[in-house]
Amino acid sequence: MGKPTTETFDLKTYLAEGKAKVEAALDRALPVVYPERIYEAMRYSLLAGGKRLRPILCLSSCQAVGGSEAIALPTACAVEMIHTMSLIHDDLPAMDDDDYRRGKLTNHKVYGDDVAILAGDGLLAYAFEFIAVETKDVPADRLIRVVARLGRAVGAAGLVGGQVVDLESEGKPDIPLETLHFIHNHKTAALLEASVVCGAILAGADEDAIARLSRYAGNIGLAFQIIDDILDITSSSEVLGKTAGKDLKAQKATYPSLWGLEESKRQARQLTDEAVAQLAPFGDRAVPLAAIAEFIVSRDR
Amino acid sequence: MGKPTTETFDLKTYLAEGKAKVEAALDRALPVVYPERIYEAMRYSLLAGGKRLRPILCLSSCQAVGGSEAIALPTACAVEMIHTMSLIHDDLPAMDDDDYRRGKLTNHKVYGDDVAILAGDGLLAYAFEFIAVETKDVPADRLIRVVARLGRAVGAAGLVGGQVVDLESEGKPDIPLETLHFIHNHKTAALLEASVVCGAILAGADEDAIARLSRYAGNIGLAFQIIDDILDITSSSEVLGKTAGKDLKAQKATYPSLWGLEESKRQARQLTDEAVAQLAPFGDRAVPLAAIAEFIVSRDR
Repeated sequence: MGKPTTETFDLKTYLAEGKAKVEAALDRALPVVYPERIYEAMRYSLLAGGKRLRPILCLSSCQAVGGSEAIALPTACAVEMIHTMSLIHDDLPAMDDDDYRRGKLTNHKVYGDDVAILAGDGLLAYAFEFIAVETKDVPADRLIRVVARLGRAVGAAGLVGGQVVDLESEGKPDIPLETLHFIHNHKTAALLEASVVCGAILAGADEDAIARLSRYAGNIGLAFQIIDDILDITSSSEVLGKTAGKDLKAQKATYPSLWGLEESKRQARQLTDEAVAQLAPFGDRAVPLAAIAEFIVSRDR
Repeated sequence: MGKPTTETFDLKTYLAEGKAKVEAALDRALPVVYPERIYEAMRYSLLAGGKRLRPILCLSSCQAVGGSEAIALPTACAVEMIHTMSLIHDDLPAMDDDDYRRGKLTNHKVYGDDVAILAGDGLLAYAFEFIAVETKDVPADRLIRVVARLGRAVGAAGLVGGQVVDLESEGKPDIPLETLHFIHNHKTAALLEASVVCGAILAGADEDAIARLSRYAGNIGLAFQIIDDILDITSSSEVLGKTAGKDLKAQKATYPSLWGLEESKRQARQLTDEAVAQLAPFGDRAVPLAAIAEFIVSRDR
């Protein structure tokens, strides 16, 4: 990933290369040893594909503030481990009870609920170990900040908190907008934000740069969710690689259900524009981050 | 906790004071904020009592190598959060399906399986955040070592790995001794060992001291489990605060089933003696650790 300009930058290649790099690192990160079943279960979901948006954002953010890709790669892998943990646990019968994810059987359908719970726990614990053991050439105080940010992004003040409010809101299509914002700011945006911010922390970014990148990421996180809600209505299961129309069936409040489709699209566009505006001081180094924001708002899956 | 000698040391008071200190710190660590339900669920199990042996060991180990209690208190709380996470997830219907723990309804019986899974996830993530944010006056490189050790102790190379082999061994009363050792070295001893070793790392212990404390803790971890197995046979549910006779009913291999009761007691005693021998270089500072080893082998609940 060199230093492109807006004119020459090819996002498709950039994302494909980023995904390949992250997946190779994830593959190396988790060899299968005794007891094989748990490592296989962890690998099954960790290497099940996906856009790898969070790790790529982590790498891109590190580079936007002048860091190397290498120093951020372990943290990039860790955010994907955490994201995978949340998907495995979300899909459990006790939670969303989903049989398919990314076009494949969900973890518990293959390994059983017990191993799926443990695979999630194992990935979450390993994420922190991996950052601590594998990160090279970064001062330890920055690593500790990364651990703190990531821990917060996953826990009750982040992803877990968002998920609980989401569960409480099920079958209540009339929840207020603030509740919907809370769910998605925590369930989706928090880990995206941490991915971006941790990349910047690793590179030694100053507080102003971190604050800008945090706003960038918060905005694209929310835009990402709005687009997710729109696609659940307008796309097919085949294209999505997961069950479409689920929100409507579950009587879930969504942005389109509160705002309508057109206003939802307008809001996603505005959030994206504001996200990109935060990147101005970083110049050409932030071209990938800007392109990713555009990609999120215009994606069709 | 002053510097006692073998003659003057009163373990009962020491454990009671340690427990009170840890529980006060845990109570402060987790205030209830929105969304209340998840914080209440996390607190329900985190503050449900128990011996608090792991956090006390962490504090005692830090002091055994000359550190202050204060620098180890956040890590002590973190190991108890991790231990609690493992209990909440173990008790789930998809795992051991237990209705009672420490004489109280298990987490999922009160909050539902979904919230119980999330409460465990939240505690695990918070453990790492808590160490990173709350530890004062410790160089960051030591904290990173603590994060690495704890992550390893919980993940597939530790607790989770032990739990998977335990699940696979259910209904197989004739598993070999090596498998039983694997289960307990990972399911029980790994986190006890990490608790002790992390306390020492925080205090800046040298590698020899860490290796000795690691052997001490590995031994008492295994002794702890042997005694647990013995008590499951010889004690009542009322005394234990959890269901007694479970192992036999579940056709679980245990140390008494492989060795018999007398040999099990002899092995626990030998492990304890070897554990205490490791403490020799630390002198009077390690009196509490020695007394805790004796307590583990002679406890009746």
